[in-house]
Amino acid sequence: AHAQGEPAGGVTIYGLMDACLTRSDRGADRATAINSGCLYGSRLGFRGTEDLGGGLRASFVLETGLTIDTGELAQGGRAFGRKALVSLAGRWGAIEMGRDYAPAFYVVQPIDPMALGIGTASSTLWTGAASTSAARNNNVVNLLSPTWNGLSLRLQATVGDERADGSRKARGLNVLYRSGKTLAGISHTRVDNADDLAHDAGTTVGVRHDFGAFTLAGIAQSGAWRGTRTTSAASATSIFSRSYRSYLVGGSVPVAATTKVNASWKRYDDRTAGNFDASQLSVNVVHTLSRRTDLYAGYSRLKNLRASSYSVSDASTAYTGVTPGASTSLLAAGIKHTF
Amino acid sequence: AHAQGEPAGGVTIYGLMDACLTRSDRGADRATAINSGCLYGSRLGFRGTEDLGGGLRASFVLETGLTIDTGELAQGGRAFGRKALVSLAGRWGAIEMGRDYAPAFYVVQPIDPMALGIGTASSTLWTGAASTSAARNNNVVNLLSPTWNGLSLRLQATVGDERADGSRKARGLNVLYRSGKTLAGISHTRVDNADDLAHDAGTTVGVRHDFGAFTLAGIAQSGAWRGTRTTSAASATSIFSRSYRSYLVGGSVPVAATTKVNASWKRYDDRTAGNFDASQLSVNVVHTLSRRTDLYAGYSRLKNLRASSYSVSDASTAYTGVTPGASTSLLAAGIKHTF
Amino acid sequence: AHAQGEPAGGVTIYGLMDACLTRSDRGADRATAINSGCLYGSRLGFRGTEDLGGGLRASFVLETGLTIDTGELAQGGRAFGRKALVSLAGRWGAIEMGRDYAPAFYVVQPIDPMALGIGTASSTLWTGAASTSAARNNNVVNLLSPTWNGLSLRLQATVGDERADGSRKARGLNVLYRSGKTLAGISHTRVDNADDLAHDAGTTVGVRHDFGAFTLAGIAQSGAWRGTRTTSAASATSIFSRSYRSYLVGGSVPVAATTKVNASWKRYDDRTAGNFDASQLSVNVVHTLSRRTDLYAGYSRLKNLRASSYSVSDASTAYTGVTPGASTSLLAAGIKHTF
Repeated sequence: AHAQGEPAGGVTIYGLMDACLTRSDRGADRATAINSGCLYGSRLGFRGTEDLGGGLRASFVLETGLTIDTGELAQGGRAFGRKALVSLAGRWGAIEMGRDYAPAFYVVQPIDPMALGIGTASSTLWTGAASTSAARNNNVVNLLSPTWNGLSLRLQATVGDERADGSRKARGLNVLYRSGKTLAGISHTRVDNADDLAHDAGTTVGVRHDFGAFTLAGIAQSGAWRGTRTTSAASATSIFSRSYRSYLVGGSVPVAATTKVNASWKRYDDRTAGNFDASQLSVNVVHTLSRRTDLYAGYSRLKNLRASSYSVSDASTAYTGVTPGASTSLLAAGIKHTF
Repeated sequence: AHAQGEPAGGVTIYGLMDACLTRSDRGADRATAINSGCLYGSRLGFRGTEDLGGGLRASFVLETGLTIDTGELAQGGRAFGRKALVSLAGRWGAIEMGRDYAPAFYVVQPIDPMALGIGTASSTLWTGAASTSAARNNNVVNLLSPTWNGLSLRLQATVGDERADGSRKARGLNVLYRSGKTLAGISHTRVDNADDLAHDAGTTVGVRHDFGAFTLAGIAQSGAWRGTRTTSAASATSIFSRSYRSYLVGGSVPVAATTKVNASWKRYDDRTAGNFDASQLSVNVVHTLSRRTDLYAGYSRLKNLRASSYSVSDASTAYTGVTPGASTSLLAAGIKHTF
Repeated sequence: AHAQGEPAGGVTIYGLMDACLTRSDRGADRATAINSGCLYGSRLGFRGTEDLGGGLRASFVLETGLTIDTGELAQGGRAFGRKALVSLAGRWGAIEMGRDYAPAFYVVQPIDPMALGIGTASSTLWTGAASTSAARNNNVVNLLSPTWNGLSLRLQATVGDERADGSRKARGLNVLYRSGKTLAGISHTRVDNADDLAHDAGTTVGVRHDFGAFTLAGIAQSGAWRGTRTTSAASATSIFSRSYRSYLVGGSVPVAATTKVNASWKRYDDRTAGNFDASQLSVNVVHTLSRRTDLYAGYSRLKNLRASSYSVSDASTAYTGVTPGASTSLLAAGIKHTF
């Protein structure tokens, strides 16, 4: 066994191990479990950068998602399911190819006070395609602008796959603005599934401002998708044509030198005949033991209106199987250790 | 490619590559093969520790089991199937969460002169649940005491999974005593499977003492399991209610400055109607080339009594497919290289 | 996250990330796609060497193949599908055990001007068993000679697997000669599949010479396989008894200080009744940005004669689904970054 020393421009190994004890209530059944990644998904990554001279840099990242409670791969068993990118960057920006998040993720994740953890924004406020809930895309080309006065632009397109034309296509962009205390962003995405009739589109805007004593955040998303079925289904999770609006307000308050409380309230407004609405209240407390290690506890309660059956989630797990119309909740406490 | 330098409190990469040539005889058929992990299972691991101050430490381990002869994952295809843990340790002991061995492993493995390698103790002297032969548990919480005068205590419980209540539960503990020349331990484990009628329980005691010219070791295990079927099956490997006692005696003798001979004799005493008894004699020679590299050879012969069909194993493979009642043997030689 | 420093005899992490934009034409359909590994297969590897004294060294390598466009494992989902070996080396040569390329690979890959990339030599000029197109073998023992005046010998045998006797067996060897400007090699391989009637045999010779202003290369292969079916099938990719000869001529020309053009022409001469011949022209341009990073573009066109349906390939993907008798082509451009 050999440990690593000082950085030397080579390969960096990094990661995050998050284990938690969860109590989920889905209306019909309850479960207590050791789980992986309530606050952030557990991961092991490899990355590196090469200076090519003249302001040009080549770099790569390979990031494995894993479930610490079972030792298995996350992201449906992909070896490097979180991220796999090679990129070339210069003063003109950067081009990246591989597998990456869709552009809305880079707006929602840093603005959401829960950072897509316990009471995650992603269950009804999508960061990828609303119809599939996948946050990431394969076969990606990203074009990233340089940052001008805090403003940056990201364009993403997916380019087929090696099997055949006519496959799933995703295109999207975001614009982010960062100053000392403010982060604001807007994104738009469109996904055309293999069936030409089926497509998703979504527009997201968000802003977060640090007022010193506390931070406030808000996100709004408007989207629609056209499924291959033309009539509404009886369940919120069926794929059929629909349009929706989704809202989040929340914030963070430091309550001690090493402790912060974060909270969010979300409202999902389905605008089709089924009217599959939901609302969700989430709060967590994060206690910092060191720069690399946190203890945390959190609670989220989701109220399904009418026949909705949305589930509470944390950063890794959707606690599915909710009785339509039932309220559902998650209580979780754990440790997050980065390296 | 960039190699690693001096430790700097960061991530340590470690592992073990064990490849061997094996000749197994199962009564009905014989096979000669290159195999992986006859002495110890091949593995690649990542681990690290952070000093949090005040005697507190956070640490993690991710350990991949692999088969060097095929480049595949061991442990049924789990990415980090050997171990996945995050822990917080202090003067009061440690708490760990993730996937780990059951407590009996930490008694049997260091006492068994074969170290669960060729002629492994685990085939009839279980380290996990006897009914499933799995040595490890998912969804684990471990509580570890500090060491008082050589004594330490380990408690383990598995906590559900995120799917539903009523899932498999395992609880266990061990007490270990270590002095300069003696290692002694006791463990007790109980596993309740999803079907409430099905459960396993086992108690294990073991001791090893180094007399200078040689080391002697003994292990005894008493266990029972209740299967979902209430009548005895015709085969030793069927799951049905049964009770058993298992014994091991053995030892190690250094025969040269760099060479050691290890041997064990086991007796499995099935106490149910089928009376599926077996006995096994195992011996190996380990020649040390360096601190990190060994050459080894070993032989194990298992005699099945009546209709038993237990198989010989090494640290990675159970050579299954034995004719009931037949004797079976394994001859293996290989190299073990740690890093 | 902790980066690696200076080498210290420990574990080296290395790898290669190759992403490309491809346009494949299979006669019937065309596809544009982001793909992985057009020039070289994307990979992440771990290796290390221990000096045992007296000229003896122990070493290991574990190499994961991956597809950067999806974050998945290559080589059919094997975790260390590219290579998994432990070895012991001395003045007498080396012995290796695990999973490795067949011997013909070590002749064809360094001589082929396309280095088995775009317009790869491997689709009709096999480096493993012609009947299965697998380039690698499991359960391998390699015996490597030392190098005498530029000459070296490699012997390979696969030894069963742990399941049963009568399994697939591969045996092969190569002899390589390397001087300052010349590389020449010959290999012979025989594979006996589980069915005794089915076997492959192939002999390959190749030479490459650097004339300064340009490099020329030639490879010839003669092979035969006996399938389990005795009559010719209607398709080039069906497994039936056949014999063939395959030829490659090509070369490389530096066209600027940092740019090289490589080209090859191949002819596949099927000598059985179906007469499934094909010819293929390939060319690429590799532009070096740094010691570790290249940009590249390439084109390959394969002409299927009569009812042949061979497909163009790059270092990672066979663009299958070609209409029998149709011509097929691949246009690709990408980036290759090693670390």
